[in-house]
Amino acid sequence: MNYARKTIAEIAGYVPGEQPQGKPLVKLNTNENPYPPSPKVLEALANFDAKRLRLYSDPICTRLRETAARIYGLKPSQILAGNGSDDLLTIALRTFVDQGKALAYAEPSYSLYPVLADLQGAQRRPVPLTDSFDLPENAAELAGDATLFIFARPNAPTGNLTPLATVHRLCRDFPGVVWIDEAYVDFAGENCLALVDQYPNVVVSRTLSKSYSLAGLRLGLACANESLIQEMNKVKDSYNVDMIAQALATAALEDQQYMQENAAKIRATRDWLADALRANGCQVLPSATNFLFVKPCTSAAKLFTALKQRCYLVRYFALPRVDEYLRITIGTREDMEGFLATFLELDR
Amino acid sequence: MNYARKTIAEIAGYVPGEQPQGKPLVKLNTNENPYPPSPKVLEALANFDAKRLRLYSDPICTRLRETAARIYGLKPSQILAGNGSDDLLTIALRTFVDQGKALAYAEPSYSLYPVLADLQGAQRRPVPLTDSFDLPENAAELAGDATLFIFARPNAPTGNLTPLATVHRLCRDFPGVVWIDEAYVDFAGENCLALVDQYPNVVVSRTLSKSYSLAGLRLGLACANESLIQEMNKVKDSYNVDMIAQALATAALEDQQYMQENAAKIRATRDWLADALRANGCQVLPSATNFLFVKPCTSAAKLFTALKQRCYLVRYFALPRVDEYLRITIGTREDMEGFLATFLELDR
Repeated sequence: MNYARKTIAEIAGYVPGEQPQGKPLVKLNTNENPYPPSPKVLEALANFDAKRLRLYSDPICTRLRETAARIYGLKPSQILAGNGSDDLLTIALRTFVDQGKALAYAEPSYSLYPVLADLQGAQRRPVPLTDSFDLPENAAELAGDATLFIFARPNAPTGNLTPLATVHRLCRDFPGVVWIDEAYVDFAGENCLALVDQYPNVVVSRTLSKSYSLAGLRLGLACANESLIQEMNKVKDSYNVDMIAQALATAALEDQQYMQENAAKIRATRDWLADALRANGCQVLPSATNFLFVKPCTSAAKLFTALKQRCYLVRYFALPRVDEYLRITIGTREDMEGFLATFLELDR
Repeated sequence: MNYARKTIAEIAGYVPGEQPQGKPLVKLNTNENPYPPSPKVLEALANFDAKRLRLYSDPICTRLRETAARIYGLKPSQILAGNGSDDLLTIALRTFVDQGKALAYAEPSYSLYPVLADLQGAQRRPVPLTDSFDLPENAAELAGDATLFIFARPNAPTGNLTPLATVHRLCRDFPGVVWIDEAYVDFAGENCLALVDQYPNVVVSRTLSKSYSLAGLRLGLACANESLIQEMNKVKDSYNVDMIAQALATAALEDQQYMQENAAKIRATRDWLADALRANGCQVLPSATNFLFVKPCTSAAKLFTALKQRCYLVRYFALPRVDEYLRITIGTREDMEGFLATFLELDR
């Protein structure tokens, strides 16, 4: 006897990237930041009075949202905090997509999107990216009657940045909500935050997991006009962000300089590695993120396994259009020098 | 233009108990524990290496679940960790109740239950509790074709404990999943954990918010047979419990003695206060929790406001069957002596 809804019983669920517990691997598989969180975060943790944990956290994350609003140039009422941006994506599906209706999403992209459609009992409406992995010009048309369209910009796992004009066109032409997942945007040169004030149907989501080195803390932020935020606010768990996460995330956002400096270091390492891999004959997609999407000279699947045996864990997706690539997170320059030497030894 | 699903746009959402930020009130309104978390929790926080936050947390909370399993006498595969038990309740609806199907829930009880039905687009199927606020003997029958039945034992906001025989009957007779919300059970003399191994359709949920003084940390645990846990595991966000919460919750669970001692102090204060209020002519329901549900001599609504003006914040529910009561969280003996003096002055 299976008590679960048919839609749940039939699916495998999302499989997150491997999180080896305690093994001595160089983890280049889940786009974590090689640098520690800001010293301000460490200080906030050291100063956190654990006795306060007996009380509930602020359900609306007042101080955190005020801080984010100041940095983003928005009002606090335009911001929703989540337990990671995955929490926000789940809230998006539950707020904007009825069972039986459709979720449109770019493909190939973050493989959680179609799983979220399944979990909601919604139809999957994949919109194929172009040969350069950009949104197609007619994305709105391809989305049909979907009520929510999610895409990542920069895209994952490909790393590229769909031209802004194409994004504007989608926002204008698509009748439902357009969700721009900007998880990696701090490693790019531009972003879509301005669209939040230009379109009533746009949500831009951010995470502190990558650029702020806080994957283990779980903190996402969604930016949109007030009425979208209000509806999503009804759906979120009341106390979805814990007290420590609120304090540490606020401290992280307040230290923009530290984040920017780390992002710059990672971009420099990324560009150096891309050049070195290209010089070896690999095809490396242009990246606006903290990872590279690389088509090696030899089989990607075999190279993934060979690298793992040599203690380098990268990500391989056995999925259409991307199964000849490896996704390589950018670590420190030292990590990547070691990685490059091993990679060049194996990829021939 | 409202972009939200009709079912979301039409509802007000759940309104959590007031969380005054920084006001000098004695907070007796959301059942927080007056004692700080265990010294082991404070120690775990002091020893937590914040640099690790750059990495993702363990998605399946291995060490936390192993610790809980040992304490509960279950296998780790029978336990799911959530970002508070509200997260687990949301997962329950999404796993077991299709849109258009029904959620059965005890009423009056935790007012989140019907909101969760609304959010899922499910029918509300309230099952009225008896005059003594126990589950009725024919609860399964009254639940009709609902696919999930949620009730709290001890119940909130009434504080009482439905007889175990009635619970067994429900688990046997109800064809769907029976969810026993044991948020307050550490303040009672008995619990339903043994039912997890006796019935394939039973989930028992716990929280660290009340008895472990960790409301601000967000940690809930669901116990059930492996196949129910596996289905819920597909629905949860991959990284729903952050790294710090996993470490601190593990430390809290490991210090059973501290939790039990605090629970005993709270029970003693509760029983003393109940006697004092009864002596004043109030009707006080039997409580197996860290709060009292009290029908005062005068108007509960007016007394709520008068108490707040005197800096005592309790909870008042303007809802059928409970609108003549106040729910009073048990603080320290000292808090409650001050509260009693004020209460007796006002309730006449």
